[in-house]
Amino acid sequence: MRPVITAFAQSPDRGQGLARDMGVRWALEETGQPYDVRLLSFAELKEPAHRARQPFGQIPTYEEGSLVLFESAAIVLHIAETHDGLFPRDPDARARAISWMFAAMSTIEPPIVERSRAILLESDKPWYDARMPMLDARIRKRLRDLTDRLGDGDWLDGDFSAGDLMMINVLRRLQGSGLLEEQPAIRAYVARGEARPAFQRAFAAQLAVFEAGQAC
Amino acid sequence: MRPVITAFAQSPDRGQGLARDMGVRWALEETGQPYDVRLLSFAELKEPAHRARQPFGQIPTYEEGSLVLFESAAIVLHIAETHDGLFPRDPDARARAISWMFAAMSTIEPPIVERSRAILLESDKPWYDARMPMLDARIRKRLRDLTDRLGDGDWLDGDFSAGDLMMINVLRRLQGSGLLEEQPAIRAYVARGEARPAFQRAFAAQLAVFEAGQAC
Repeated sequence: MRPVITAFAQSPDRGQGLARDMGVRWALEETGQPYDVRLLSFAELKEPAHRARQPFGQIPTYEEGSLVLFESAAIVLHIAETHDGLFPRDPDARARAISWMFAAMSTIEPPIVERSRAILLESDKPWYDARMPMLDARIRKRLRDLTDRLGDGDWLDGDFSAGDLMMINVLRRLQGSGLLEEQPAIRAYVARGEARPAFQRAFAAQLAVFEAGQAC
Repeated sequence: MRPVITAFAQSPDRGQGLARDMGVRWALEETGQPYDVRLLSFAELKEPAHRARQPFGQIPTYEEGSLVLFESAAIVLHIAETHDGLFPRDPDARARAISWMFAAMSTIEPPIVERSRAILLESDKPWYDARMPMLDARIRKRLRDLTDRLGDGDWLDGDFSAGDLMMINVLRRLQGSGLLEEQPAIRAYVARGEARPAFQRAFAAQLAVFEAGQAC
């Protein structure tokens, strides 16, 4: 049974792989699963049919028979639990990988999204120039802590796991900010993730959606 | 083997149960597990011994033999997976409960924490009065979506689960904001969580730490 995910018909990121289907596509590629994609317009996101799948009108969702999931990290966790390749077999190591998944979504991502929101929604406000250094400082502190933990390891805890997948997926949002460049170890960590063939297949698949939209 | 968690020796919330050990204590109580608590000063949070457990110098952590976990939601998930009482037995229902755990941490909590940060760190800034309505609007939108999904159910998806535990734990941060009062169904949902004996035992345990600190 091929799972079906939802994604933006017209992603606001213009094919940079920053929409939240990217992590799910990457996890499906890491575990070698073919999948189908249902593309949704912004109007369709608000319709009851999609709200039934996703209470907050967001993408992605994941459907597999009668199972319907939302939240990209929860979908990646489900894929990791039901297929080889994204979780260690040792139960303790698997629990630690889940710690990193939540760290990505709950500790690292919020200040990064807050910074992106400020650029998008507050760049014309009188307070923008005063607030941005505060937002950058919050992110810098997290990145320094992450550098310390990473040390000279390739991945956060042993082999590549769903924890690295979610963390790298979140850190990619900083590209263009200059903040990744301040922490070469983190920049190299992100590059290692992006060099994985599964990442590249997932990236190409979401880019193809953008390019097909352009051709219309 | 009794697990050991870490918590603030002096919680900045003065015993309101808003520090992040609260969810872990609640999960341990729901599953009937005795546990020990190691209280840490703010100085101890920054020391290498704690950084080895928690890369970002936060609380809580969870130690069980050689297993060390961080991120409260990851700890709750581990407790739910290894003990009865917080996850449905059906694998699909369990995956849906995990969707709600990530929704709590990644969709609901970030705008709530952002609002709390603004009150704490920006209330003396010239932009404070202009920004607060923007922050409130973001939270209101999420609460309306959550009300729609909850409908007239007691919990988010069938019986009480780790998804409800994390969601209610996050929503409690809105107490005193007036925003919960605008959504009576959500307010009643939070009250149902707080009425659970396991919640009350966990709340009393963290309050006792605060009161002992006051007596010194």
